[in-house]
Amino acid sequence: MAPIPASRAEPRSEASPFRLFQAINGFQLTEAISSAIELDIFTAVAAGHNTAKALAAERRVAERGVRILCDFLVVNGFLRKSGDQYSLSEDSAVFLDSRSPAYMGSCVKFLLTDEIRQSFHDLTNAVRRGGCLQTYAHAPDSQVWVEFARSMAPMMMMASQGLAEIVVGKESRPLKVLDIAAGHGMFGIAVLQANPKAEVTAVDWSNVLAVAR
Amino acid sequence: MAPIPASRAEPRSEASPFRLFQAINGFQLTEAISSAIELDIFTAVAAGHNTAKALAAERRVAERGVRILCDFLVVNGFLRKSGDQYSLSEDSAVFLDSRSPAYMGSCVKFLLTDEIRQSFHDLTNAVRRGGCLQTYAHAPDSQVWVEFARSMAPMMMMASQGLAEIVVGKESRPLKVLDIAAGHGMFGIAVLQANPKAEVTAVDWSNVLAVAR
Repeated sequence: MAPIPASRAEPRSEASPFRLFQAINGFQLTEAISSAIELDIFTAVAAGHNTAKALAAERRVAERGVRILCDFLVVNGFLRKSGDQYSLSEDSAVFLDSRSPAYMGSCVKFLLTDEIRQSFHDLTNAVRRGGCLQTYAHAPDSQVWVEFARSMAPMMMMASQGLAEIVVGKESRPLKVLDIAAGHGMFGIAVLQANPKAEVTAVDWSNVLAVAR
Repeated sequence: MAPIPASRAEPRSEASPFRLFQAINGFQLTEAISSAIELDIFTAVAAGHNTAKALAAERRVAERGVRILCDFLVVNGFLRKSGDQYSLSEDSAVFLDSRSPAYMGSCVKFLLTDEIRQSFHDLTNAVRRGGCLQTYAHAPDSQVWVEFARSMAPMMMMASQGLAEIVVGKESRPLKVLDIAAGHGMFGIAVLQANPKAEVTAVDWSNVLAVAR
């Protein structure tokens, strides 16, 4: 067999199907990051259970399964691997180690509900009609916003503290604050922490306010 | 209100939740690219229907819906936008215009079957057990491989021709070729085109071979 001529080894175009396949398979990354958060893999790696074998023992999962999952997360930049040892990327250390004050893992419970996934699964029909297929979220007392309040509170902690600093500043006189669609209530709570004389009125459905309370 | 001190405007860390949210929401990109392929948006843009209004008329969809979809594809690099006019990125022109010889849009029918999506939806359990939850593909005469053969043939056209050049080269004597798990049969067909004296035996389930035939 003749060697491959050099001309054939050169790409004919800069075009590559890489990004297309990455987009088509985007749901695989959704599932992988979601499973890793559910199994709390990042916290375990940060705590020193940093091989597939150690992770399997610590998280009570199959060594082969966790190795394949972790290697996929290495490829996608959420873990690093040296020999058989995993470590967290900088982003993962800040946002996915559950002991971090900026932990955001809980937000997948809201962002990946079956209702939201299902809405996107009907995307072609939404484009045809030009509207929104998602109606569940607007029903009174929808449980969706209870999940929202529970899941998104940690994510809003830093933002609410920053906003309270900007809004309240050094103001120490009594303030009246109206928090419409208060959800987890983090923004009102941060205002109260910045100015104990403030009076915050939080408005939301009663089932959602129970979370803020 | 005092201006924000410079120190607060500076990021405390290089860490960003951007990649995390991109991963969590990966399924949205899956649905967007899949819907755009199903609605054949890329071919329409290439043919000059390059505004939301023109696309809506050509593809019989809502103008608002197709504008939102296309803008999302601009953000993700599959379309470009200048004023209200869309154009294809280089990758999209090669792989997503259905008149292109390298068109790959049909592969979503195989890559995004409900069975494959469902397998990934159970990923956490697959990691726990360390096995594969996907068993449908191994049943005799599974329809999955008929869809595979139909959907993936265009994608393998160029690869099979390249492989035939390498394997057959300038050999013009009769050859015997055994193509195991032939699927769409593209590799055997390419060998026959490169050397008409070749004799190719394609082996697969009979329902799959019907596609190759």
